[in-house]
Amino acid sequence: MSVDLLVEKIKEKDNPSVAGLDPKVEYVPEFIKKRAFKEYGKTLKGACEAIWEFNKGLIDALYDVVPSVKPQSAFYEMYGLEGEALLHRTIEYAKEKGLYIILDVKRNDIGSTAEAYSKAYLGTVDIDGEKVSPCGVDCVTVNPYLGTDGILPFVSDCKKYDKAIFALVKTSNPSSGELQDLLNGDRHIYERVAECVNKWNEGTIGKSGYGAVGAVVGATYPEQAAVLRGLMKNSYFLVPGYGAQGGGAKDVKNSFNPDGLGAIVNSSRGIMCAYKKGDWKEEQFAEAARAEAIRMRDELNSVL
Amino acid sequence: MSVDLLVEKIKEKDNPSVAGLDPKVEYVPEFIKKRAFKEYGKTLKGACEAIWEFNKGLIDALYDVVPSVKPQSAFYEMYGLEGEALLHRTIEYAKEKGLYIILDVKRNDIGSTAEAYSKAYLGTVDIDGEKVSPCGVDCVTVNPYLGTDGILPFVSDCKKYDKAIFALVKTSNPSSGELQDLLNGDRHIYERVAECVNKWNEGTIGKSGYGAVGAVVGATYPEQAAVLRGLMKNSYFLVPGYGAQGGGAKDVKNSFNPDGLGAIVNSSRGIMCAYKKGDWKEEQFAEAARAEAIRMRDELNSVL
Repeated sequence: MSVDLLVEKIKEKDNPSVAGLDPKVEYVPEFIKKRAFKEYGKTLKGACEAIWEFNKGLIDALYDVVPSVKPQSAFYEMYGLEGEALLHRTIEYAKEKGLYIILDVKRNDIGSTAEAYSKAYLGTVDIDGEKVSPCGVDCVTVNPYLGTDGILPFVSDCKKYDKAIFALVKTSNPSSGELQDLLNGDRHIYERVAECVNKWNEGTIGKSGYGAVGAVVGATYPEQAAVLRGLMKNSYFLVPGYGAQGGGAKDVKNSFNPDGLGAIVNSSRGIMCAYKKGDWKEEQFAEAARAEAIRMRDELNSVL
Repeated sequence: MSVDLLVEKIKEKDNPSVAGLDPKVEYVPEFIKKRAFKEYGKTLKGACEAIWEFNKGLIDALYDVVPSVKPQSAFYEMYGLEGEALLHRTIEYAKEKGLYIILDVKRNDIGSTAEAYSKAYLGTVDIDGEKVSPCGVDCVTVNPYLGTDGILPFVSDCKKYDKAIFALVKTSNPSSGELQDLLNGDRHIYERVAECVNKWNEGTIGKSGYGAVGAVVGATYPEQAAVLRGLMKNSYFLVPGYGAQGGGAKDVKNSFNPDGLGAIVNSSRGIMCAYKKGDWKEEQFAEAARAEAIRMRDELNSVL
């Protein structure tokens, strides 16, 4: 099972964290941008060449420290077709380095369309009998607002192609409570979604005890995380909101089980832009990212 | 205002419908596929060349009948990078033909990431001072599960660049009720989302009386549509679920106001695959699509 592979990689690196690759061109060190803009101009192509060099440097510096990377699709879509090509290139490179790829796309739609999304990232597309994998990753994020028939196509491909998904349950942003915290009877909506996640997860549980359907639970809501950890015993948690969004190591503890497993904590800007803090030179961006990833790993392990 | 432009185009064509462009390669007539596969093989490129010819034929046959087309991103992402290029090509061609473009992406994320998505499709991205539009359309669909701070970046770009969005409120799929119909106090979740839509829509109302934030309300739930029509007086409705999903003309009536405005009804497979029904030859796929679009227009107008 794909989630067993994630657990293995987490154990191997002794690191329950994932490096988010959410690259705005503003994050890229000047010396890289200068080179790229000189060759390709201040264009989508120029921006993407700069980001590619940045991403590659980050992956080279991180691949033996972190078990996984999580590219955020929005920051690639933002650079148009060049950005899409950059996303594919980044995914391929991270795969070569043995990293577990969580593609953060938060896709959602009715059944027949969810099927197309699932084929795009988890499965294969059928071209008159030829099966082609358009952009294969290990795992994607999905949004549960459409209910079961928007999720089952992904679960079906998880079983068929040994993949995993994380469904949004309680997100890390300030306004996440507007809908997610509303009460239905004596339960919050995020608890109702958790009940759905358990249902979707049935029949997918691997030898690690976790199933193909994980949950996104923000670091910024530790009390809700404790409740959700109790509710979704067979789901791995993907925990955003650590670092730049304000969540600390103690805040993420509730998303873990007593054995130190059960969650993977994301940091994006904190790692990517580590060189902008302290005494680093911008040429040391990769070294700075590696140091921050190690610091984060040790901080997380110190509270687990 | 972008929504005023949509209303104008609807009036001009006397047609409150939008043609969904959700092209699986299976929908493409054999004679087109044969040609494309001969030249490019049964590859992503071959599939996309076939779909391009199909899409172009459909747009040529429809552009003077329908005010708008709605490409569904999933069916392009499903064909990888070639599919993304096809999506851009289709959008550009439909724009040239004067069609209002609703890109169905159902994007959603935390504020800083929603901003990136909004730049991708509604706004511009800043490359060291150069402003570039990566994939500009008139309007996108968004998912409200993350609340206000995941939506406001889109609203801000709607104001700045004269664009529009449709937020999912009550979707057309069978399981949409699992979360959307849950009661919170005496209101369903879809009604709570409607309250949010009204808040997001403030300050964006155009001369048509409608604002930049519209709502997705499925044709398959006419009773809920009647309630929602009363709740969101300044929101245009995008109505999926007509035709292939089972909604009829009478079912969509509740999404309209008494003046025949206030909603635009989508049909995808019904129009694209019209040639597979009745006595059409596959060479007549475009003619069949046009005939179905005209039939749909007249059917909708007969109940309004």
